[in-house]
Amino acid sequence: MPARRISPNQIVRLDSIPTDYTGDLSKDEAQERLKDLGKEVGDLQELLFAAGDHSLLIVFQGMDTAGKDGAINRILEYVNVQSCRVSSFKVPTPIELAHDFLWRVHAVAPPKGSVGIFNRSHYEDVLVVRVKQLVPEAVWRARYEQINAFESLLASSGTIVVKFFLHISKKEQEERLLAREQDVEKAWKLSVGDWKERERWDDYQRAYEEAIARCSTEHAPWYVVPADKKWARDLAVAEVLAETLRPYREPWLAQLASVGVKAKTELAEYRASLAQSA
Amino acid sequence: MPARRISPNQIVRLDSIPTDYTGDLSKDEAQERLKDLGKEVGDLQELLFAAGDHSLLIVFQGMDTAGKDGAINRILEYVNVQSCRVSSFKVPTPIELAHDFLWRVHAVAPPKGSVGIFNRSHYEDVLVVRVKQLVPEAVWRARYEQINAFESLLASSGTIVVKFFLHISKKEQEERLLAREQDVEKAWKLSVGDWKERERWDDYQRAYEEAIARCSTEHAPWYVVPADKKWARDLAVAEVLAETLRPYREPWLAQLASVGVKAKTELAEYRASLAQSA
Repeated sequence: MPARRISPNQIVRLDSIPTDYTGDLSKDEAQERLKDLGKEVGDLQELLFAAGDHSLLIVFQGMDTAGKDGAINRILEYVNVQSCRVSSFKVPTPIELAHDFLWRVHAVAPPKGSVGIFNRSHYEDVLVVRVKQLVPEAVWRARYEQINAFESLLASSGTIVVKFFLHISKKEQEERLLAREQDVEKAWKLSVGDWKERERWDDYQRAYEEAIARCSTEHAPWYVVPADKKWARDLAVAEVLAETLRPYREPWLAQLASVGVKAKTELAEYRASLAQSA
Repeated sequence: MPARRISPNQIVRLDSIPTDYTGDLSKDEAQERLKDLGKEVGDLQELLFAAGDHSLLIVFQGMDTAGKDGAINRILEYVNVQSCRVSSFKVPTPIELAHDFLWRVHAVAPPKGSVGIFNRSHYEDVLVVRVKQLVPEAVWRARYEQINAFESLLASSGTIVVKFFLHISKKEQEERLLAREQDVEKAWKLSVGDWKERERWDDYQRAYEEAIARCSTEHAPWYVVPADKKWARDLAVAEVLAETLRPYREPWLAQLASVGVKAKTELAEYRASLAQSA
């Protein structure tokens, strides 16, 4: 599988993980496969919704231009958007800054039956905050454990957590930034800040490596997704989602079957009572 | 001091803590003292508001009729209610139940500069939920650690946490329940449920003992407040609040002084520039 699942406590060297790995498939084959997987994920999401005991939280992180918006848009093509909520985390507002860093994130954690997608997340508080030294090291360092406790809390109440780092090369980022200047429709995304942030590329990579290593857990794993090729990225994400949800399929079906049997029994009793009183 | 602070990991035997302890003061003396302490707490709260780096979270728990409403009303007489928010936690709503048990609590955690008062709290999820066996033991047992991690998160972002268990005797509760039946103005509080819950008195006391023992930490201590006498209870609460906030007084004053010096300097510069241009 192109996406690499990081084991708990595994040391992460992003340099050594390719950004352009596409698996064994051609682009066309990959798109066919994505169609099948998307259908499967959509079906699994319907079961998640119907069974109502779990929720799914999908976290996206990555450097500027890594494709967070694109990857999310692709997911939204194959899930039912009605029970799905995308939350984007930008520079904190004053009221958000007046609370602990998990406050705004916890508020939009997905309720049972639904899917939550985070475009950036609480991880910014150990990434940009670390690189730009917005708080003392002791503060951001304590956050790894706070994040793990928080995600463990979500997991214990039925939230299935998957986290994606969209992994692009520095070269690919340059091309995408330059392309934005050419493309009138993407020019609104242009920002000098992106080029400035790019100067701290290595700092960000180190920050990502540590965050991913410290916060990849059994109940909330990190996946590093080669993201230089968008079609390979989208397929990798869909593969992980399908593999993550697949083990729940049988239990959900069994649960729904028993609900169905109960409903049928009640309906039969109701009809019998009508017949009797007629 | 009448309120007993529970040390981390201290074994708690509520039987052995008196419910009617009133200290060395008469009722009149206690009310005089409360006036002074209330003034002090009010002043400290103003500093907390002005300095803006901390918040205060006050948690109230206790058996039915223990006096949670009364104790909170008394605090509201001496704090500035403008920067204070009381949150009552009743039986969870469906949307609350669709999230982890800390979700609704985290949402109303006090922002910097303000005071939050909880009338019941996340502790209900290891109290009534345990006594009535609403979830399996493994689930509520994991919550002690989840609560400690959550309160530690709040503390790490500047929230000062104090937790009060209002400790009344079973006899005192009976008298208060009977009094409700006599008092037309309190009859709305009457509930057969209260008498039924009373049958599980011992189970609740055990649940409180374990919750208080496991979740009394340096950064979020539990206080057992003798609450048979309302005037002694209110004094004990005010004493704890004053003692909790007092150590922050000097740092807050120093911080405000430096803000003041800066503002004065800016003002002087502004006036000088006006004089120059005149």
